[in-house]
Order: sequence, then structure tokens, then C-alpha cells
Amino acid sequence: MNYSDSMKDRYRTMSTTTEKLLRLIRGEWNRFRKSRADTAEELLRDPETVANFLLSRRGEASGTMLAQRLFEDFESAPPAAQLAFFEHLARNFGPDGDALQRAIDAWRAAPGDAAALALHNAAEPRRQELIRRLNYSSGGTYRLVEMREKLLALKREHAELVPVDADFRHLFTSWFNPGFLEMRPIDWRTPANILEKLIRYEAVHTIRDWDDLRRRLDPPDRRCFGFFHPQLVDEPLIFVEVALTNDPAHSIQALLDSGRTPTPADTATTAVFYSISNTQKGLAGVPFGSFLLKHAIDWLRRDVPTLTTFVTLSPVPGFARWLAAERANADSPFTDGATRGALEGLDAPDWPHDAERADVLREPLLHAAAVYFLQAKTPKNQPLDPVARFHLRNGAALHRMHFLGDTSPKGMKQAHGLMVNYLYVPDDLEKNHEAFAEHDEVVASAEIKARLANTENGKKRRVKVKH
Amino acid sequence: MNYSDSMKDRYRTMSTTTEKLLRLIRGEWNRFRKSRADTAEELLRDPETVANFLLSRRGEASGTMLAQRLFEDFESAPPAAQLAFFEHLARNFGPDGDALQRAIDAWRAAPGDAAALALHNAAEPRRQELIRRLNYSSGGTYRLVEMREKLLALKREHAELVPVDADFRHLFTSWFNPGFLEMRPIDWRTPANILEKLIRYEAVHTIRDWDDLRRRLDPPDRRCFGFFHPQLVDEPLIFVEVALTNDPAHSIQALLDSGRTPTPADTATTAVFYSISNTQKGLAGVPFGSFLLKHAIDWLRRDVPTLTTFVTLSPVPGFARWLAAERANADSPFTDGATRGALEGLDAPDWPHDAERADVLREPLLHAAAVYFLQAKTPKNQPLDPVARFHLRNGAALHRMHFLGDTSPKGMKQAHGLMVNYLYVPDDLEKNHEAFAEHDEVVASAEIKARLANTENGKKRRVKVKH
Amino acid sequence: MNYSDSMKDRYRTMSTTTEKLLRLIRGEWNRFRKSRADTAEELLRDPETVANFLLSRRGEASGTMLAQRLFEDFESAPPAAQLAFFEHLARNFGPDGDALQRAIDAWRAAPGDAAALALHNAAEPRRQELIRRLNYSSGGTYRLVEMREKLLALKREHAELVPVDADFRHLFTSWFNPGFLEMRPIDWRTPANILEKLIRYEAVHTIRDWDDLRRRLDPPDRRCFGFFHPQLVDEPLIFVEVALTNDPAHSIQALLDSGRTPTPADTATTAVFYSISNTQKGLAGVPFGSFLLKHAIDWLRRDVPTLTTFVTLSPVPGFARWLAAERANADSPFTDGATRGALEGLDAPDWPHDAERADVLREPLLHAAAVYFLQAKTPKNQPLDPVARFHLRNGAALHRMHFLGDTSPKGMKQAHGLMVNYLYVPDDLEKNHEAFAEHDEVVASAEIKARLANTENGKKRRVKVKH
Amino acid sequence: MNYSDSMKDRYRTMSTTTEKLLRLIRGEWNRFRKSRADTAEELLRDPETVANFLLSRRGEASGTMLAQRLFEDFESAPPAAQLAFFEHLARNFGPDGDALQRAIDAWRAAPGDAAALALHNAAEPRRQELIRRLNYSSGGTYRLVEMREKLLALKREHAELVPVDADFRHLFTSWFNPGFLEMRPIDWRTPANILEKLIRYEAVHTIRDWDDLRRRLDPPDRRCFGFFHPQLVDEPLIFVEVALTNDPAHSIQALLDSGRTPTPADTATTAVFYSISNTQKGLAGVPFGSFLLKHAIDWLRRDVPTLTTFVTLSPVPGFARWLAAERANADSPFTDGATRGALEGLDAPDWPHDAERADVLREPLLHAAAVYFLQAKTPKNQPLDPVARFHLRNGAALHRMHFLGDTSPKGMKQAHGLMVNYLYVPDDLEKNHEAFAEHDEVVASAEIKARLANTENGKKRRVKVKH
Repeated sequence: MNYSDSMKDRYRTMSTTTEKLLRLIRGEWNRFRKSRADTAEELLRDPETVANFLLSRRGEASGTMLAQRLFEDFESAPPAAQLAFFEHLARNFGPDGDALQRAIDAWRAAPGDAAALALHNAAEPRRQELIRRLNYSSGGTYRLVEMREKLLALKREHAELVPVDADFRHLFTSWFNPGFLEMRPIDWRTPANILEKLIRYEAVHTIRDWDDLRRRLDPPDRRCFGFFHPQLVDEPLIFVEVALTNDPAHSIQALLDSGRTPTPADTATTAVFYSISNTQKGLAGVPFGSFLLKHAIDWLRRDVPTLTTFVTLSPVPGFARWLAAERANADSPFTDGATRGALEGLDAPDWPHDAERADVLREPLLHAAAVYFLQAKTPKNQPLDPVARFHLRNGAALHRMHFLGDTSPKGMKQAHGLMVNYLYVPDDLEKNHEAFAEHDEVVASAEIKARLANTENGKKRRVKVKH
Repeated sequence: MNYSDSMKDRYRTMSTTTEKLLRLIRGEWNRFRKSRADTAEELLRDPETVANFLLSRRGEASGTMLAQRLFEDFESAPPAAQLAFFEHLARNFGPDGDALQRAIDAWRAAPGDAAALALHNAAEPRRQELIRRLNYSSGGTYRLVEMREKLLALKREHAELVPVDADFRHLFTSWFNPGFLEMRPIDWRTPANILEKLIRYEAVHTIRDWDDLRRRLDPPDRRCFGFFHPQLVDEPLIFVEVALTNDPAHSIQALLDSGRTPTPADTATTAVFYSISNTQKGLAGVPFGSFLLKHAIDWLRRDVPTLTTFVTLSPVPGFARWLAAERANADSPFTDGATRGALEGLDAPDWPHDAERADVLREPLLHAAAVYFLQAKTPKNQPLDPVARFHLRNGAALHRMHFLGDTSPKGMKQAHGLMVNYLYVPDDLEKNHEAFAEHDEVVASAEIKARLANTENGKKRRVKVKH
Repeated sequence: MNYSDSMKDRYRTMSTTTEKLLRLIRGEWNRFRKSRADTAEELLRDPETVANFLLSRRGEASGTMLAQRLFEDFESAPPAAQLAFFEHLARNFGPDGDALQRAIDAWRAAPGDAAALALHNAAEPRRQELIRRLNYSSGGTYRLVEMREKLLALKREHAELVPVDADFRHLFTSWFNPGFLEMRPIDWRTPANILEKLIRYEAVHTIRDWDDLRRRLDPPDRRCFGFFHPQLVDEPLIFVEVALTNDPAHSIQALLDSGRTPTPADTATTAVFYSISNTQKGLAGVPFGSFLLKHAIDWLRRDVPTLTTFVTLSPVPGFARWLAAERANADSPFTDGATRGALEGLDAPDWPHDAERADVLREPLLHAAAVYFLQAKTPKNQPLDPVARFHLRNGAALHRMHFLGDTSPKGMKQAHGLMVNYLYVPDDLEKNHEAFAEHDEVVASAEIKARLANTENGKKRRVKVKH
Repeated sequence: MNYSDSMKDRYRTMSTTTEKLLRLIRGEWNRFRKSRADTAEELLRDPETVANFLLSRRGEASGTMLAQRLFEDFESAPPAAQLAFFEHLARNFGPDGDALQRAIDAWRAAPGDAAALALHNAAEPRRQELIRRLNYSSGGTYRLVEMREKLLALKREHAELVPVDADFRHLFTSWFNPGFLEMRPIDWRTPANILEKLIRYEAVHTIRDWDDLRRRLDPPDRRCFGFFHPQLVDEPLIFVEVALTNDPAHSIQALLDSGRTPTPADTATTAVFYSISNTQKGLAGVPFGSFLLKHAIDWLRRDVPTLTTFVTLSPVPGFARWLAAERANADSPFTDGATRGALEGLDAPDWPHDAERADVLREPLLHAAAVYFLQAKTPKNQPLDPVARFHLRNGAALHRMHFLGDTSPKGMKQAHGLMVNYLYVPDDLEKNHEAFAEHDEVVASAEIKARLANTENGKKRRVKVKH
């Protein structure tokens, strides 16, 4: 493998610094390994054996070395062996069945706090202690996150690994508790090995190259924040990009236009959060997104006192798919013939460049979007849109909708170009969250609700007709 | 309260920096509180209510604020109210009994990984989630450690709080996992607010004042290392003091003699660990001492390549008490009349200053000590001495004994002046640990074992006589 | 020499860190020295030879090593050899006389910029280039400052060294230009090796020990700032201690009272600069004191927005000596018989503790002080008091006088207990400076000037009588 | 001006951070300016007036503000006004002619150290004090470097500015003394705003983009070092790029080949310095290049103990021009008809791609290069090549020559593709430097000297023939 291939390869998986650290650790391990008697070598010939050993009483004294060894063996093992290792954990490192049975019996004989605690302990899979011990070694946290990334990929086809993943996730949720994370600003003075991760992981609006990155970080009206964990020094776990403006943002194109005149930071009134991206697949399901937004708002309020409005400019990833289904469904409760007719223009290729046609589509499309957000629901009575669920649960309100707010191919494909703002009013977050979490209410601006006023009547009429 | 009293007071409980941080946080909370409607105030009138609220779905959105509120209320509450809060947690924040019963039923119907996991989750006390949420707030980790310190004090007289403490300890053990701690050297360039904690917390050989402290940190033949957690920046969790020498250390007096000529660091052959102290009462029972020693040995090997020997100079805290009991017990299996006679000199006040008398005592006392370490055992067949148990479990070996190694009042009182070395040979740690952990063997030097050679015979003889 | 003596010794001369650095450098030099042929050794047998060599063309390539060598030899040389070295510099490293004569001739033939520049260069003592080259080596700046400290001590009795010192001072003034210095706050989180220098160098109000130091740094109403140079990382060049209060400060005793209740920092209106101390004797005559005060005022205005008044609480070091001379001088133009009578109470031992006697002395003493500040002058028409000259030149105004403001033995001895405030009004500094620097005016408050109103008449009367 | 233009513009002149700092300073100045009376405004209406004022006694108290003001006015002034300012400095801020005359008279009356010192001081242009005072302000050092960049551009056509530049250079040489510079490694973890300067300033082998940059910094066999000044935090003053290899480097193409397999850093034997670039035009003529190389060699010896050889891979910028002149000169003492014939192949376009033709050219071209380095000389008997002069003066030796070592258009144009190694043997530097500096000897390897063996004869023959 030549140099540039090997480079590309390692970019995909780990940071420069961490890699250098690991290289060092591996060197030490190899020296250790060479100094060991063959008998020990014999004993420790696969990750499973090492894992058994690491959990044993004897393993305590040399825990760090054994953890190194296990990672080393696991990482250099072929995929089949990695799967075997996880299956070993699934099969043999669950709770001790006998002990659990005894704890159940004790609880039944005398329920109470002590019995419940004993039961809790007995029911704890031994994997959790194994994972904690693996974390003793230098770089352990990072390697565990990588290990889980592999586990998640395998889990899709190997349901027996679900409990193994539950243990990883349980511990990660505790270890990556927001109290342990540090929010740091990211700008053009940030080390390049961190910045390159922004290029790689930006999930919402692709960063094309370093010049594009610079345009998002360096101008006086741009900000970026990331969450970092003390053990993953060069790895932002999640980051959010922010534009400071005086106008409400109408489209991502205008926001990212390289020809615009930057807004002086000390006069900006509005902070627009236009992209939030996770970076670590191995931390999937560990929640810290909402904390990042709240911390970023706190930071910005102190740093730019003229700011009064905090708002996202967000994609609507489920809209086009939903609308296609409803348009295809003659019985759709959400669209009638007139609506469907009005929306036919969507099928014309390249309609956004035809001003007249676009004008005709504007109102029907915004109306359909209001239906999508406010009326269409999942079986659990939640909004269909995953981005909407995220922000509403945080306590934000659905604020405005922007026709042709994102005319990139991706934006057209997933939402016919629609973008929306979610508004974060610090003093309303708790109230809004409660409305959403306890009463399933989609908190939305009057402007958006008004779009349904006629529909409500129409809908009622239609419903009547149907019966 | 005048200034110096208030100072003394706060020294007892927290560090300057942390306090400043907390003061800031409290200011923000008060501003928040003032801006709240009275109804909310009404709702949140005691820590119990806040705790309930914090665990509710509604509490998610304002978790950080609520956590602040709870700490604030708890910390300013009188002791009785603090006890009431802990009892509330004990009574009302255990596992959900109904859910637990259902999980047990499910397990009995169909035991398996999924059922065990559900059982584990159902048996988890709701306190754990509460503690995790309290940790969301700035300074939360530190405040939780302080909260547990209070809990530990109350637990002694309130057995019902034992399960509450088990939850704190469980989470702290995960959060203060050695993989999350950082070992840092402590020297004369370390900030004063950290150094003053060494003076305060040194538990083995009192540091009298700043000059005394300097003599332990600054000379070229002294080192000190501490473990730090990222969230407790100014708080060493544990620290170890080291002397570099060319001689084996015979006494703590010689080691700490302010008139000695320092050993040039680049010729030293022996590192003597002469004091290990924990600093946080609230982290009692969370194990990290053995990791600190191993990290410190690694560091020293790199930093001072001439070092070949790593050894402690340790107190023997249980020796005098044990010996007094045996001497008073006519049936003692460990001492016979001759031994008792030989040890009578211990009763003379100030015998260490009477060279002749001391000479007479030397051999009998060292013999008794060998018995204490090698033969006397707890019901679980462990050595009686807690310091011995700690080092033997780490894989060290009992190496040498020093007559009148510590002639301070404390040293005389607890061990008739005896000190011992435990030897850390990196390549033997695992083997020794196994001998101790699995076979209850006290690994000791030939020199110390030889002291019992005659006794063995004597004992056997004596035993024969008895029967 | 035992350990504690050697410690004390080195405290006097250098900081821990710098010393460690130098130790390292010396080790490298010794290795270098050992690897050199004897011939070179022969050539370089004294600092003078090394200096010659260092300035030669050949010296360029190994300048760093030679500089190390010269420092090494100089620092370990006996005092007589150090004097010889400086005399060598005085005698042999001045400007090149012939070249200078040629430059003068050229100037006389054709005066102009080019000729003046050539003349300037020819007149530059070769010492300056030598000092610049010595600075190439690691730690060179620090060692040059130490070297000048020795030079200053010798200069007092060896006038021939004056030009050598002029070169050091010229370069230090350029290198320690305020633009290269960094003001940093000093508090209880500052490393101990810096803090100990505050104890050692405090020149105005002695810091007794670490507890005393803490009382000056840690309470919320105390601040301290120092100037640091990038090359002298652990060495504050000068520091100022500040008290935040709500009252004007009447006495240093009240300000430093350990029993006082601290003023909350966010309500303080007045910053009192009560001590300014230089630390490096080797930087004598390099001006940075006034910059430190101005930077500190800027910092405090940003940090504590409630502050409105910036004032010193200063000693009056020349007052008692001056007053004694005037009282002893029957022809004193400043005191008449009545005045002298009124001041006789000063001769009673311990008069400050006799309230009645003190009351009698108050007005006459304050009157005499007003005379001392406003009327008594040096031959150059400057105020007699050196502290007054410093602050007035900075643009401050003489603001208030405090009877028994400093009752320490030192305060009583040098000023009969008198202290004064100099007031820094940022907008008036330039105007005041001009009044003082260009018109010799002592800018003082109306209150102080009023004390002389009667005297003016009296003085005139007296003068008349004399003629 | 749109955003991207303004970006490009500011890239040319200053770094992000510094710019932000300056923006802040300017804001403060403007607030100050607004608060001033009109009279002062009147007084300070151009940089010349401000400069006069700044040097006056009155200017002392408000020096920092005035310096800010002067920079502000100067930087926003049109080019003609900037020229006028420099001419003002040239005309009015030289030495005081009368004082100088008096000092000359005094010297003639009584020459001696004191008189010489007075003369030196009198001959110092008042500009130097002005420049020192300008440096008092925040960011002053950076702005002075920028100011000199403008001065240097103007000096070419305005010889009267030469003395002004001499003063800047004199002070910069003192301020940027190697003792005040810090060498720092530059790698992929370095902040992006520093890295982008490498792309911009690389003067030897162009860095095309960020991927190219990464290939020079991140692989395990690459290193880069820069010199930084404490006042110019984000600005490397000079940087050197290094490749670690096991082979001697034959060509820059091979060294920078993106498809090569990286050499493991812990086995490399040779460090190749393949590019050294200055970044600050305003520091032209201030020497620090040789110090950087020596520091880098020290660093690498510690960091990569397997290294035994330190060598440059250098361009030969003057070779092609010299050769063209000699080939065109029938009387050239360096080339005869045969040589000229042998070199005719150089005129064929694209000859490097014609292997046969290249083979024919190899020996004659290398021979001509040996003549260029060893025999051709400037009137001062120095080698013609500026790069050779730099390394030989540092004490390096001309080591090897590489035919077609640089086939880039630039390499072909300036040197017909020739590259050379200069060898740095730490123990020989002083000796080599002396040979070069005192005896004009070009220290070269036997291999290169051997190429002239025949020529020497030939040359002598030819010389004979001529006579």
C-alpha cells in the first residue's frame, strides 16, 4: 500500500495524535510481550482468553497490560475473529445465572432495598466490569469507542449482540455525561488535525475544502463550538456551526454565500445555528446534542451582548418522502384532489429555476409542510420529522418556513428545497419542553399555525363528506 | 465572623478556585430564581421536591438549572434537613418495586440475556439517574463528592442510608476509573492552592509548614505525584511522596533530615515511596492507590534511568495494638513466656533513648513483627496489617524491617518505632499478586522469613506440648 | 555546607526553575568541554580570552557554546577575577579609537546623516555587541541580569566601570521595553516558586510568612499584578499589591488587618495600590514601574466595573530625616520657633500610644508635611521625596495625608507614621505630568494646599524680618 | 469589495489573530479620540506632529496612546503621506547636530571612555528612541515590522531613507536576537492560522494546497521547525522543513513523492533539510537562519537518536545564469571549446526526458558545477552562489551534487536541474567556519574536488598556451 492510500485509510478511522499515542503504546506492549515467558503467551492466545483473564482476580495486578493486549489483539484480528469475540462476550459475560437466581429468591423472601441492590448487582452483566477494566489502559476510552463502532456494524445482522451493545451504551452514557464534556470554540486558530475532522464529519451542508472551511470559521460573523471529552483530546464529539446576522436567515445559500459582506460581530442581533454534526459513530445514542446548543447559546449571550434571537436554520429530511406517499395515496387524510393538483408542478425537472412555476408552488407547498409538521404523526403521536422531534424536545418552537431555502441537490431531494427555523427562547424552553413531552403539543408560531386555519375547516368538511 | 475564622472554615471544605467557580454559579442561580414566577418557587420549595422534579420528564429541559438549585438548597440546609434529604432518597428513589416484580416474573417465564438486562435495569435504583443528572451542572462532580462526604458521616448512625451510599460509590467508581485520571508531578512550581492541600491532607508524616513542604518537593532528590480528575482541576485525589537515594532507607528521620546532603538525581539507584495520602473523604472506597504507584514507577523509570529499586518506607499501624493483646494473653499462640519477658523493656518510658535497653529489645521485637506479618491472620486468612494488605495485593513483597525506623510519637505509639519496606519489582507484580490473591501467601524476603525458622520449630514444639 | 544552608544561599540568587535550566546547560557545556582538544582549552583559559574570541569572526559559528563557556567561567570565578573581567571590558572593549577618529574626520569633512550614522556606529562600544552575543545562549538574558547585579556592586568603588554599566543599561532598556513585558495577575493559584519571590522581595510592607502572603492574595478584595519578561518566566520583574475597598484608606494597619471583613469585589469603589516592589537588582534604572501601574488600572477598570477611584497608599521615606534637619537648623526657612515647639512631642518615646500627646502633634506634623511636599525642593527644583517624584512624574496628584497611617517601626522611623495617597485620574495624567515635567508644579489637592495658606503669610512675614 | 477579495487582501498583510487584536486596539483608540478636546485634535493632526509629541517630555505620560494614534494614522494614510512621514523622520529625527558637535569637541579635548560614550549617545539618531517608544503600545512590535516593510519598498527609490532603515534594522537586530526567539516544532496539530503561512511563504519548493502541506508535516518521517518571537505569537519568522530518511537524498522529486513508503522515524539515519523560508519582509537583513538550523539539529539529535547525518538538499540559484555567461564568453577562463561543445545539449528543449542526451550531459554539467562552486569567485573572493555562501559561513561543507535533482521548471531554469547537499557535522562547524571566514576556503568533499583534478591540469595548460 503506498503512502497516500495508507493516509486516506487512517483518516477514516482515527486522529493523528491519537494514532501516535497508540503507536507508542503498542511499542511498549511489544517490548512487554517479548519479555514474557512462553507459557504466558500460550495462555493468552486470543482476546477471549485475555478477557477471561482480565476479569479474574489474578488479572487485577496486570490489568493495564492485559487491556493493552486485548485491544492490540482485537484491532489486528480479522472481522470474523472480532465477531467471535463479541459473541463470546454475549454468551459468556452476561450476569451469573445462579447468583441471579439466588438474588431473586432472596428478594422474594424479603423484598427491600438491600435485596434490590443485591439483585441489581447480580443482574449486572460481567461485561460492564470488563469494559471498565479495559478503560484502565492509556487510550482505552478512545479504543472502546472504536470497538463499539465495529460492534454497531455487526449488531445489525447479529441480534444476539444487542445486550453487548446495551452495556457499552450504558457505560458511555455515564462516562460522556454532559458534566464531563467541555464546550470549546473552534476557529481558524484551532489545530489543523481537529479542523480536518469538521471537513470529514460535517453531515448537513458539505464542506468542500479548506477554503470552504475557512469561510465558515474565520469571518467575524461566524462561530463554531464543539464538545470535547478529556480523554479524546483531538476529537470533537459533536459540533455546531453558527452565523451571526441582522436579518432572519431565509436560505442556506445566502448564509454561506462567499461574496456576502460579513456582519460586524458587535452589531449582530441573531445567531443562526445552521449545522449540527456528530463525529463518533461509536457514541451513537449517547445524548449530548441538546446540551451543546444550550451551552453555545449561553456562551454567545456573554460574548455578543447584542444578540437577542437564537434560531436554527434546519433541514426537513422527511418531508419529500412523506409528501410523495400522500400524493400517491388517494385516501390520504392530508391531501385532497385540489392540493394534489396544485403540487403537480413539483414533478417538473428543475422547477426552481422557472420563476413562474415556482411562484405557483409556493403556497401549496408551505401549506403541505404545515400539515406535515402539525398534523401528520407517528403512531406514538409524535411529529414525523426527526429534526423537528429533536428541537421540540429541547424546548424550541417551530418558527418559520423558508420556500427554496436549500436548493442544493440534497435539499431538493429530501424536502423540495424547504428549510425551517426553530426558535430557542431561553425563558420558554422549559414550558415548551413540557408542552411537547407531556402533552404532545407541537409548539409553533402563529404564522405557521395560520396556514392550517382553512384546512381545519376543509378537513372537517372533507371528513364529513367521507362519512 | 471575622476574616481569619471564615478563612479557616472554608479551608476545611473546599479549594479556592472551586469556591470561586461555585460563587459564580450561585450568582447565576440567584438571578434565575429572581426571574421565576412564584408558582415555580412554590413547587420547588425543598431539595426533595427538586429531586422529584429533576427526575421527571419535564425536568429534562431545565436539568442544569434544577441541579444547581438542588445543590444550592442542600448545601445551605441545616444538618437535619440534609439527613431528611438523604432519607427521602433512601425511601423514595430506590427501584420501582412493581416494575422490578414484573421483570422478575418475565425472567422466570423466559430467562435469558434480554430478560436479565431488563431485570438489571428494573433493579437499578432511581437514585443513580438522579446522581447522573446532578452531574450535568457546572461543578456538579465536585459538589457530589462533597455531598457524599456528608452522607458517609451520617451513614454511620443511619443504616438506612447504606443503599444510597452504594449508588454514589457505584457511580464514582465508574467516573473515577483510572483511565479518566491523570497523574501529574507536583513540585515547587505547582500552584499554591494545590500545594496547601498537601499540607492539609498529608496523613502519614505530618508536613508542619511551607518550609517543611518545600523540603519535600524542591530538592533534586525529591519527587511527588498526584492523581487528578479533569472535573476537579485543583484537587489532587491522592498523592505520593518519593525520595531518591543510593542507600536503602533505614528510617524516616534520616530520609526527612533537613541537614542531609541531597543525592544528585542522576546517580540515584533507589526510589523510596514514603507517604501516600488520600485527600477526598467523599471518594472513600474508590480504588486508585495502586494505580498511582504503578504510574509513578513508570514515570520514574523514564525520568531517572539509573533507578533500579522501587520500595516503600511504610508504617505498621496495627503492630503495637496486636502485640499488646498478645502480651496480655497468656494463651497467645504467638508469644511464650520467654518472648514476653524479652519484650518487657517496651514498657519503660523513653526506651529508645537508652541505647543498651534498645539493643536488648531489637531482636525480640523484630521477631514479633515477623510473626505479626507472616503468621497472625484475620478470620479470612489475610494479614492483620492494613498497609501490608494494600501493598501485597498490589503485588509487592515484604522486603525489610527497620527497628526504630520512626521514632515520632505516632510511630512509637502504633508500632514501637517499626517501619518496613515493601519492594515493587515490576516483573514480579503479577506473580506476587496471584500468590497473595489466590493462595493467601504473604510474599516476603528470605531475611524476614528466616526470623521465624526457630519459631517454627518452637511453635511446633509448643503446639505439641499443648496437646 | 548542609542542605538548609545551601538552600538559603541559592534563594538569594536565583529561582528554582531557572536554576534547573542552568544546571542542564552546564551539564551540556561540560560534556562539550570534555570533548574538546586541549589546544582549545589552552586558548580559552579565562573569561577575557573567551570574550575576545566571542567577538572575533571565528567566534560566530560557535557563539552559543562560547557564551555558555564565558558565563560558566565568570560565575564560578572568585570576586577578584570577576572584577578583572569587568575591567578588561572597560579597558579593551570600548569603541575602536582609530575608527572613531576617522569617523570624526569624515563628519567634519562632510557632515550629514550618513556621516552621523557612521560616527554613531564607530562610537558604539564593542561591549554592546559582546553583550548581544552573550544573549544568544539559553538562559543568557537571566545570566546577564545577574552579571549586571555584580557589576553594580563593584561600580560603587570602581568608577572605571561606569561605561561598562552604561552599555548594560542601554541594552536592557531596549530589551525590557514595556512592549516586551507582560502583565499577569498573581494570586493564590500562582506557582509557589513565583509566590516565594513576593515574600522575598516585598520592599514596602514586609510579608512575614505564607499565611501573611495568602491574606494579601486570596481574599476577594485583594489583587496583585506583576510584569514578566518572556525570557525570565518565573521571575516577576516588579509587582504591585492592591486592596479593593469602599472607604478611602486611612492607614496601612486597617488595610492589612487580618480580622477585617473582606469587601465584596463587585461593590468596591476604590482600588488602593499599597505596595510596589522591584525584584531584580540587575535591572536597576530600567524604567517600568509607571507602566505597571497604568496597565493595572486598565485591567481593574475592566475587571471591577464599580471602581471609580485609583489611589496609592504610599510611604514618605524622606520626611523624618528632612524634619530632623530643619528642626536642628535655627535658620531653617521652613520652621520657626513656634513650629519647633509644637513638634517637640515627637521626641517622646512611644508618643503614638499617648492619645493626648498625639492629638497635640497632629496639626503641626501635617503642616510640616505640607511644607515638605510643596515648598522644600532639591537644587533642580524637584520635591525632596523620591516616592513623590515617581508618582508626580507619572501624572498622579498628591491627594491626602494620613496621620499615623503607618505605626510600624519603619513607618515611625522614616516618616513619624505619616502616609499619603497619590490619586491617579486617568484623564488627568497627561495634564498633571506636563505640569510637573515642564513647570515643576507639584499637583496637590486643595485640602493639602490649604494647610500652607497661613504659612505663606507667616513665611513672608518672616522673610521680611530677616531683611 | 466583496468578502473573498477582502480576505485575500488581508492575507497578504497580517494574521487573523493579530488583526483581531489590532481591531480591538483601534476601537479603544477611537473611544479615546472621541473623548479628547478639539484642541488636542488640532495639535495631533498628522503622524509627524504625533511623532514630535511622542518624543517630547510631555509625551511620556500618554506614550502608549500616542503610539497607537501614530500607527493608526500611518496605516490609514495614503502612500504619499507614508513617504512624507518617513522623510520627516529622515530629515528631522537624526542626531542633534549641535549636541553632536559639542560631543566631538569634548572628545577632541579629552578623549576617553566617558567622552566616547557621550559621543555615541549624541550620535544616536532620535529615531531610535521614537521607535522604542512606538513599541510601548500593544501590538507595537508587529506594527513596526509592517512599517519597515513599507519603508524597504520605498527605500529602493528614495536613498534618503537609508539612515531611517538603518535605525529600524539596528533595533530589530537587538530585539530579534536569537536569545529572544523560541524554536517550536510545527506539525499537523499546529493551529491552522500558522499553517496557512507555510503555504504562503514557502519560498523554495511551492506548497500547492493543504493536502500538499499535510504530506510535508504529518508523515512519521517529516519534521518542520519555526522560530517564533513572543510578541508575534502566530507568526513564524522563519521555518525549515526536514525529511528523515535512510538513503542520501538524490532528488527533491523522490523526497516529496506522495507515493513513497514513509521511513519509520525510529530507524532513520539522515535528516535532510530541504527548504528554509523567511516569512517577514520587514525583518530583512536580521540574521537568524543559521541559528534555526543549529537548534533544529540539536532538537533532532535528542528526538531521533538514530540520526547520524545532517544534510541539506539545496538549490543552486546562480548556476544557470553564470554558466550562460561563461558559455557566451569566448575568453572565459572557466570553459574551453570542448566544454562548450559538451554542454550544447542544454539548449535542446526538454532534454531531461531524453535519457541518452541526458547521459551525455551528466559529466560535463557536474564538472561545470564544480568549477562554479570552487573556482568562480566574487570580487571579494567569495563563492558566487548565495546559498553556498550562507551554508559555508555556517560551517557546513559542500558535500554532493545531484544531476537532475530538481526537474521542476524553476529548478531547470535556475540550475539546469542541479541540486547539492551541504553537510553539517556538529563537531566540524567551527573549524569549517574559520576556514571559510578567515581563509576564504570552500570546504568541499573529496568527491567534488576530484572533479577538478583534470581541469586543474587543463587550466594550467590553457593558461600556458595563452602566454
